[in-house]
Amino acid sequence: MELLWAHTDSAPPRPLPLNRNDRIQRMVTLSSQDSLPKTFDLKGYLSDRQQRVEAALDGALPVVYPETIYESMRYSLLAGGKRLRPVLCLATCELMGGAEPMAMATACALEMIHTMSLIHDDLPAMDNDDYRRGKLTNHKVYGDDVAILAGDALLAYAFEHVACKTVGVPPERILRVVAGLGRAVGAEGLVGGQVVDLASEGNPDITVETLTYIHTHKTGALLEISVTAGAILAGADEAAISTLSDYAKCIGLAFQIVDDVLDITATSEELGKSAGKDLVAQKATYPSLWGIEESRRQAQQLIDQAKAAVAPLGSGSQPLLALADYIVARTH
Amino acid sequence: MELLWAHTDSAPPRPLPLNRNDRIQRMVTLSSQDSLPKTFDLKGYLSDRQQRVEAALDGALPVVYPETIYESMRYSLLAGGKRLRPVLCLATCELMGGAEPMAMATACALEMIHTMSLIHDDLPAMDNDDYRRGKLTNHKVYGDDVAILAGDALLAYAFEHVACKTVGVPPERILRVVAGLGRAVGAEGLVGGQVVDLASEGNPDITVETLTYIHTHKTGALLEISVTAGAILAGADEAAISTLSDYAKCIGLAFQIVDDVLDITATSEELGKSAGKDLVAQKATYPSLWGIEESRRQAQQLIDQAKAAVAPLGSGSQPLLALADYIVARTH
Repeated sequence: MELLWAHTDSAPPRPLPLNRNDRIQRMVTLSSQDSLPKTFDLKGYLSDRQQRVEAALDGALPVVYPETIYESMRYSLLAGGKRLRPVLCLATCELMGGAEPMAMATACALEMIHTMSLIHDDLPAMDNDDYRRGKLTNHKVYGDDVAILAGDALLAYAFEHVACKTVGVPPERILRVVAGLGRAVGAEGLVGGQVVDLASEGNPDITVETLTYIHTHKTGALLEISVTAGAILAGADEAAISTLSDYAKCIGLAFQIVDDVLDITATSEELGKSAGKDLVAQKATYPSLWGIEESRRQAQQLIDQAKAAVAPLGSGSQPLLALADYIVARTH
Repeated sequence: MELLWAHTDSAPPRPLPLNRNDRIQRMVTLSSQDSLPKTFDLKGYLSDRQQRVEAALDGALPVVYPETIYESMRYSLLAGGKRLRPVLCLATCELMGGAEPMAMATACALEMIHTMSLIHDDLPAMDNDDYRRGKLTNHKVYGDDVAILAGDALLAYAFEHVACKTVGVPPERILRVVAGLGRAVGAEGLVGGQVVDLASEGNPDITVETLTYIHTHKTGALLEISVTAGAILAGADEAAISTLSDYAKCIGLAFQIVDDVLDITATSEELGKSAGKDLVAQKATYPSLWGIEESRRQAQQLIDQAKAAVAPLGSGSQPLLALADYIVARTH
């Protein structure tokens, strides 16, 4: 079975060009991971970054009149979660020599956008979920109307926040990030993936290509801009941004494959949401197309590919290497 | 009865400071409208600008895979309408010496944002409207799920479009417009007004202050950035932007008062949507608080104030003067 490659453009996925594989192979040969220290403390790193992101998110959204909408926005935005997107954004900014204030507004915006997508996904008109991260979903607490508006406000605020609160970055780079965020959320990204996902519901016979389209857009596009935005803000060159984009595409798809596997193998308690939903919904997933073992193998192969892409960037890439491993090893 | 003033900050409306009235009065004395030619062809002007905006909107959103979402976005975006926000944006850009390509992307973005708000407003979870501009509402054609996503995608695309397609404007000005658009849509603007509106439903006893909060946020905030964005993009100085902001606040509130009056006095056919909805919903409106005649008088007074604000800007302000008159004289 050929290894999948994540695409975030609007065309259906194409096979990975050979010269790209060759390039990655060459990079691995030139600079093996073995030359990097093996003692990176991912847990401490994640905990530190997550705390800083929590504090920034908390500070970004004070409650003022009309309180209901701010409370609703904060209810979902501050409901925990891994903060993977902000952490990735901060990591690539640092990797490319940037300081945290350059990327923190974008890191927060990524979480606002992600939260918006979750609030709207959970609505009765969409996935109709009552629980998310072990808490009642936004519309179960505030009503469908306020939940729709809270999502809209979070999305709008994400762009405002990037435009107003990014520190020490030339405006043309900030504009590039604004454009990238817009593309990642809209019909070319997250929403496009959602629509194909909705259209594929109740059809367990969709192809791997369609499934991959769904995931590279529904989750992959936002992960990709999470990774590249940090580098763009730090002033990285196009080659480095492209390398990081490759890394992001691989971990994005691996993340989704692992998600599909966990939906089968993990308990609802572990997930903080209903497990086994895909099976109940007769939804096509990677495990339903490939089986669990092959899905795990593909995820691992994508993670290896992601790590090979960024290893040549030097010891600063350690957080990205560790995060890639974390994605495939996680249990929830 | 004291004349209302539209506020778009998050505090409850305050009475208009006397020195601002004085300033406007002085401007009228210094440069009366009588010195301007009276033969401005608003109909021709509107028709020309509307056609250009239609063409730009059409070109901005081609249909690609997955077609459903693009069709849904285009269904509402290209459903006609007065294109008041884009026309205002183009008008102030021109007034301040800017060329059309500087403002057209923002003009389109304003209509995308406005359309998003209409699609989401019409949802069963919100106003539950079946018709808009004489056509079935988005969710009646595409389903609630796709309608929610089409709104999200239009909102995201608006920011992307401004960031990518604005021509000949320094990036810091574009970023200021991005920030202004975000603020106008979010909890400090449109969404904030919506939430207070929802909370006031079925309560015909709300105060004029609350009603004014609703409208200065729900419709006023986006109208204000429509007017100021054109000037910002053209490089206008802060004094001119502030004058235009005053103009926008006045016409924004007048527009809403006229809307409330038309809901009572116009037929559904004239409006292209259900008439008399506010009465049926026992909704507080300006006519319900003031009566129809006083509402009309207040609207006219705001329009006079708006015109007095921009008249000193010279003969280039003719479209703004004519648009102000048009708002209060319109029948649908």
